[in-house]
Amino acid sequence: MLSRFIPALDWGSNYDRSNLSGDLNAGITVGVMLIPQGLAYALIAGLPPIYGLYAALVPIVVYAFFGTSGQLAVGPVAMVSLLVATGVGELAPQGSEEYVTLAILLAFMVGVIQLALGLLRFGFITNFLSHPVLSGFTSAAALIIGLNQLKNLTGIPIPRSNSVFEILYEAGVNLGSVHVPTLIVGLGGMAIIVGLRKVSRRLPGGLIAVVIATAATAFLALDESGVAIVGTVPAGLPAPSTSFLGFSALADLLPIALAISLVGYMESIAVAKSFAAKHRARIDPSQELTGLGLANLVGAFFLSYPTTGGFSRTAVNDQAGAKTPLASLFSAAIVGLTLLFLTPLFTFLPKALLAAIVMVAVVGLVDVKEVRFLWKSNKTDLALLLTTFLATLLLGIELGILIGVGVSMLSFVYQASRPHMARLGRMPGSEAYRNVERYPEVETHDGVAIFRIDASLFFGNVEHIKDGLNGLLTDEPDTRVLVLDLYPVNRADSSAIHALMDIHRRLEERGVSLLLSGVKGPVRDAFERSGFTEAVGEDAFFMRIHDACHEAHRRMNTYLVGEVDSPG
Amino acid sequence: MLSRFIPALDWGSNYDRSNLSGDLNAGITVGVMLIPQGLAYALIAGLPPIYGLYAALVPIVVYAFFGTSGQLAVGPVAMVSLLVATGVGELAPQGSEEYVTLAILLAFMVGVIQLALGLLRFGFITNFLSHPVLSGFTSAAALIIGLNQLKNLTGIPIPRSNSVFEILYEAGVNLGSVHVPTLIVGLGGMAIIVGLRKVSRRLPGGLIAVVIATAATAFLALDESGVAIVGTVPAGLPAPSTSFLGFSALADLLPIALAISLVGYMESIAVAKSFAAKHRARIDPSQELTGLGLANLVGAFFLSYPTTGGFSRTAVNDQAGAKTPLASLFSAAIVGLTLLFLTPLFTFLPKALLAAIVMVAVVGLVDVKEVRFLWKSNKTDLALLLTTFLATLLLGIELGILIGVGVSMLSFVYQASRPHMARLGRMPGSEAYRNVERYPEVETHDGVAIFRIDASLFFGNVEHIKDGLNGLLTDEPDTRVLVLDLYPVNRADSSAIHALMDIHRRLEERGVSLLLSGVKGPVRDAFERSGFTEAVGEDAFFMRIHDACHEAHRRMNTYLVGEVDSPG
Repeated sequence: MLSRFIPALDWGSNYDRSNLSGDLNAGITVGVMLIPQGLAYALIAGLPPIYGLYAALVPIVVYAFFGTSGQLAVGPVAMVSLLVATGVGELAPQGSEEYVTLAILLAFMVGVIQLALGLLRFGFITNFLSHPVLSGFTSAAALIIGLNQLKNLTGIPIPRSNSVFEILYEAGVNLGSVHVPTLIVGLGGMAIIVGLRKVSRRLPGGLIAVVIATAATAFLALDESGVAIVGTVPAGLPAPSTSFLGFSALADLLPIALAISLVGYMESIAVAKSFAAKHRARIDPSQELTGLGLANLVGAFFLSYPTTGGFSRTAVNDQAGAKTPLASLFSAAIVGLTLLFLTPLFTFLPKALLAAIVMVAVVGLVDVKEVRFLWKSNKTDLALLLTTFLATLLLGIELGILIGVGVSMLSFVYQASRPHMARLGRMPGSEAYRNVERYPEVETHDGVAIFRIDASLFFGNVEHIKDGLNGLLTDEPDTRVLVLDLYPVNRADSSAIHALMDIHRRLEERGVSLLLSGVKGPVRDAFERSGFTEAVGEDAFFMRIHDACHEAHRRMNTYLVGEVDSPG
Repeated sequence: MLSRFIPALDWGSNYDRSNLSGDLNAGITVGVMLIPQGLAYALIAGLPPIYGLYAALVPIVVYAFFGTSGQLAVGPVAMVSLLVATGVGELAPQGSEEYVTLAILLAFMVGVIQLALGLLRFGFITNFLSHPVLSGFTSAAALIIGLNQLKNLTGIPIPRSNSVFEILYEAGVNLGSVHVPTLIVGLGGMAIIVGLRKVSRRLPGGLIAVVIATAATAFLALDESGVAIVGTVPAGLPAPSTSFLGFSALADLLPIALAISLVGYMESIAVAKSFAAKHRARIDPSQELTGLGLANLVGAFFLSYPTTGGFSRTAVNDQAGAKTPLASLFSAAIVGLTLLFLTPLFTFLPKALLAAIVMVAVVGLVDVKEVRFLWKSNKTDLALLLTTFLATLLLGIELGILIGVGVSMLSFVYQASRPHMARLGRMPGSEAYRNVERYPEVETHDGVAIFRIDASLFFGNVEHIKDGLNGLLTDEPDTRVLVLDLYPVNRADSSAIHALMDIHRRLEERGVSLLLSGVKGPVRDAFERSGFTEAVGEDAFFMRIHDACHEAHRRMNTYLVGEVDSPG
């Protein structure tokens, strides 16, 4: 029980020594990758670069104790950083002390929301977000993130904006003010990162570029010719602080906190599941929410802004041999050592290089492949993708998310409210009943209609079934007996029982008998308690369709005989 | 095609004379009922009583042309009136000219929203609202409506409030200021209405009470002893006006307009469906949205506040013999004649009597029966009902709706994201495959797992299936062949295909073969276009499970032979 809440108790006490070398190698590799990424992503979030390293320390340690994935690498990620910049940017000027405080408060709020959802075991909540919507949103966000770094890459003074067109317009108008040394550092950095990646994916391209660019800037005194540098960075681990706690901004931050909780969890769980499947391991979606929530919550007290599990570092972690969360503890150690001893080295790190790191990273997020895939395979989903993409680009991140969620919900309700139903007939000479659409040879009898309902029944899909049965009775007024096979029904909520009662009442009014077959235990109990069993009659329940049909034919004969006998 | 959009073209040109007497009788009965109800419901909405008659005129005529139900009686209803009072009350003082203008603008907005949703054929959108949530919300709203009429019933000055406790507190504190003549009129009116209903449900109790109370007030000059009366009412039909059109309040009214569009449609469609089933008629949910939308939209230009189809008048309409929307046209004629010639008679109508009409009407909305039903049958749904009920009472109508919608959505996603899957085995000596849980006698073979998926696949439920199959492969690492029976799958969106590709990739990594049986045409096409067919191989598709299993056993043998042959 306790080890379900703190999975580290489990893997920690049963740690297999043979995993150590893999965990150590992966931990160091990811730690080395975290340094430049953390500094760069803080820039996306509009925070001083050092906050990217703070976000790469405590949250990682906390997740290692409470998370269920052995490979997931938690820390600052591009998308969440963009959401922070969007949300906090509306409330405080970038670079101000208040801005930093709000970003940390946001991490606290995200932590509380995710922790609460996790403890309520609401890990399923992201099921309603559709893949095309998410892909369209991510691509648009990546473009916005990348273009916002044009300023740092080129030295052109462009105000931060969520409008791609505004950024391109400003860049175009002010093309003359490109700062050539800055541009050279930026493009050079990109070339190094992309080039080294071509040589080997295992090389720490970002870190190598950082070292080269910093050294070049320092020795050539590029900062004196106007190349923007990170400047003095405070040394030491983040000191615990509660100064961000305050109530005045809670209401204003709530929408963005909800968005980050959802988007962050969504990104993380997708990555965690994919690597768990590869390793034949199980992850617990709700415990993942709890783990991420605690990482953000505790992280906030150590100056961390919102974090989540990211794709690229997780892939590297796995490739380098991570088997347990111990790897993450090694990564955190690298970041900790850097904070303690190496921060002076970042003084001459040019911002243009961080911009280069960001731009290379987000190019991978623009999902052209999915567009091509949907163009070939599913035009409806393509339309959803493009709608969300354009809405996000044209109307901004926040409306983009809202529209995406709205479109997803509509699409979810539409698809989920139409459960599968099959009309059945008897296979000649057997006691098996099959779908009449699939097996044209099955026997059916006038006056007896047999339906199988292929879904558990609940308020959301029961209307479809009522409509279907009402349609049948309108189209085939001669129906005398309706047999419903409820074998695939595992649950039936109160709305479903109301609907069945309603169907039964309508049938009775028309003199149609209702027979039920294959009703399972829990559904049977619900029928019993609600009085539905009593209304239909105990003798209307049958184990097998065949038995129900036998009774149906008996009733049909009685009915026909009655008709012949009647004086009318 | 045109008669789908204007159903009146259809029933009008094929009108069966034998329906005329029923339609006429029903139309007059409902028209007579509409007069007191309209005046009373306008009071709930915080509008001068005459606006209740305006709302009972043009919208009814419009719906008669565009609606698909032969029995539905459109017009002012209690719940929508309460929502109007809640929404508009925040923006303008009750009784002011601005208040009236905003209520009419609201009808226009509701009309636009419903019309748009109807034309987009979004009639399914209310499927996600759960029955217990709606019942809890309705009961709470009925209490709030009823208690807000205490003021008019007793003469105690109680400010309008959405807080039941505030109303009861104010009433208790000011109990001394009860105005006895007012209370006598109110309670007397209630006694008449309830008493006449006991005598016969067909008697127009409300109208008789109106006549008696008005006459008594006029002859006894009760208004001079302080009984509040309706006062001078303008005569004549509502003149067309566009003066409500303006943009300044649109954003403020939007949330309440959305709530009314949803709640109003929900109430109306439930009633319409129930009577359609009784008459073996079909109604078109999306066309109903269109019809209600046009009724509200056009109505706004004739001084109508938001309307919808209501339960009580529809039941009376049906009982009195309504067969087609012609009945509604007769009702509207009664209202029109009243507006033209009878408004002077309403001058002495006491407000306490309207309060009595409202209170008698809303008692029927407090749904104690459902609480008792759920107490016996489904404690989870009972908790949902009580949560929404208490949230609405304690936090107000608007938060009540929001919480209800939120809880419904969560519950919808939770239930819909868990589709039914069955593990199959072969019935001994046959070619039929059945659920191993249901038929313990079926034969299974080590290394071969057969699953049937009992739902169409889409982004919302595909994770559950992925999790289930990953769980299987983790629990039974010896599985060599996985047979998926996709016969119940009618549709598969792009997320579902991604998931299947993912499953296939994972299986390949582990050397497990994937075979598919019973794939239907449209799903097969989607597989083809997306490249999934190519990835799995044409030879992995089979018509029947039995054929797929035959191939599975062939592959198992090859695998086992290979194992035996291999030097390891």
